[in-house]
Amino acid sequence: MATLLKGAEAAKALTEKLAAKAEELKGKGVNPCLAIVRVGERDDDLSYERGAMKRCEKVGIAVKNVVLPLDVTQEALIAEIEKINRDSSIHGVLLFRPLPKHINDEAVRKSLDPAKDMDGITDGSLGAVYAGTKDGYAPCTAASCVEILKHYEIPISGKRVVVIGRSLVIGKPVSMLLLAENATVTICHSRSQNLAEICRQADILVVAAGKAGMVTKDFVSPGQTVLDVGIHVDAEGNMCGDTVFAEVEPIVDKITPVPGGVGSCTTAILASHVIDAAEKTLK
Amino acid sequence: MATLLKGAEAAKALTEKLAAKAEELKGKGVNPCLAIVRVGERDDDLSYERGAMKRCEKVGIAVKNVVLPLDVTQEALIAEIEKINRDSSIHGVLLFRPLPKHINDEAVRKSLDPAKDMDGITDGSLGAVYAGTKDGYAPCTAASCVEILKHYEIPISGKRVVVIGRSLVIGKPVSMLLLAENATVTICHSRSQNLAEICRQADILVVAAGKAGMVTKDFVSPGQTVLDVGIHVDAEGNMCGDTVFAEVEPIVDKITPVPGGVGSCTTAILASHVIDAAEKTLK
Repeated sequence: MATLLKGAEAAKALTEKLAAKAEELKGKGVNPCLAIVRVGERDDDLSYERGAMKRCEKVGIAVKNVVLPLDVTQEALIAEIEKINRDSSIHGVLLFRPLPKHINDEAVRKSLDPAKDMDGITDGSLGAVYAGTKDGYAPCTAASCVEILKHYEIPISGKRVVVIGRSLVIGKPVSMLLLAENATVTICHSRSQNLAEICRQADILVVAAGKAGMVTKDFVSPGQTVLDVGIHVDAEGNMCGDTVFAEVEPIVDKITPVPGGVGSCTTAILASHVIDAAEKTLK
Repeated sequence: MATLLKGAEAAKALTEKLAAKAEELKGKGVNPCLAIVRVGERDDDLSYERGAMKRCEKVGIAVKNVVLPLDVTQEALIAEIEKINRDSSIHGVLLFRPLPKHINDEAVRKSLDPAKDMDGITDGSLGAVYAGTKDGYAPCTAASCVEILKHYEIPISGKRVVVIGRSLVIGKPVSMLLLAENATVTICHSRSQNLAEICRQADILVVAAGKAGMVTKDFVSPGQTVLDVGIHVDAEGNMCGDTVFAEVEPIVDKITPVPGGVGSCTTAILASHVIDAAEKTLK
């Protein structure tokens, strides 16, 4: 039986630390505040928004909800973001994407002040994650992977990490974050040859392939830690990840469940970014 | 006997292609032009400058030399760069670094227009290399590695590349460039455990450790291609790389010599960036 790495436990520990920091900030006259910008009423967005608001409440972060209709113009959306950029009482922004097709994603991304970019979508954040500086924020899901490893005190430095996936949302940033923690990082993808063999050599396997059930027992070996970033709904209507949990779990040493794994820690990371941004206003 | 991958041969082939493009640009009224900005008279800089100027002459790129005294102020250096930014007859800039200690490197980097950044030093270029977009230029040495592989028609897609080194000048950018070519990329460094074993598993080994003679016969295996980015002077006063050439060459399939390998193609890459920047002015 593998140890289950529960995102909620890592999130709980982080939330307690953040609540203390929020208290301290308020004592200094800074009220940490997150703006959540949503276009339309997509179920996924609404569900994440509820989770983020609950987390912010626990930490002591105010939330300003900006909800725009599905047919909002690009200009109006950018105007809202620029208003937030100028508003010194707001420390960070979560913008739900993908945006409706009539809106140019890049133009909107570029309008956001990198200092308020809590989910690593601006070029400023991308560059900071790549360079390994503290001038930006990583995408919350990527940072959640690192937080879970640290919470469960899984050694990273010097270890072999294999990441399946090379997107700018997960694969690349989690690779850069773990490289900054001194892991030896291998980035794999759909064109990788001998993928299963490479994965079996990992100490830590991060699966962000976006393909349900892709990682079978052939991809893993005893002693490994597996972080499954995938979220899918299977034929029976149950949530599942990129790994075949029933096959993989008996072999490896530690694994994140889906649901309840990486995804359950992302709102705590979001809150930590807001607290960090609020703290920076004191410097 | 391993095949020697000669940078000069890759550079020659590239130079011919670029000369044709330069001719075409001139026919359209665009005279490609590179500014070389040098502070002081360091031998390494002077030697590279001579090579770059010769290459530009062969391609048909004009060079504007900006030479500043070692005690130039930061303000004066930035003023020169801003003048170049505004000068539409100059398409690209090569700035020699490291700069003297009284000058803030980051402030100078930030002053350069990313569109004219031929050696990948601005945040704009860093972000583009990381994101895999064509909006910036990679450091010339990193791009030189890829050019040599392509010139010698060494398969990259799907293959295992192991990179030793994680600097922003070589290790990280060459990793991102080879990932964009669909390689499976492992980034190693001084903290990596079992480094020799990991290196032996590579199809292509890129050595940018910055440590003379670090890669011995234990790090390689038959069939491999080795790119040695190191440049050092040994006890006898001869140039050498990061690999022990005499040990490694008999084992592997292909290897870049030092000197005459990766370093011999960098000025051709520099010229290709200038031609690319000049072509962009037509769009």
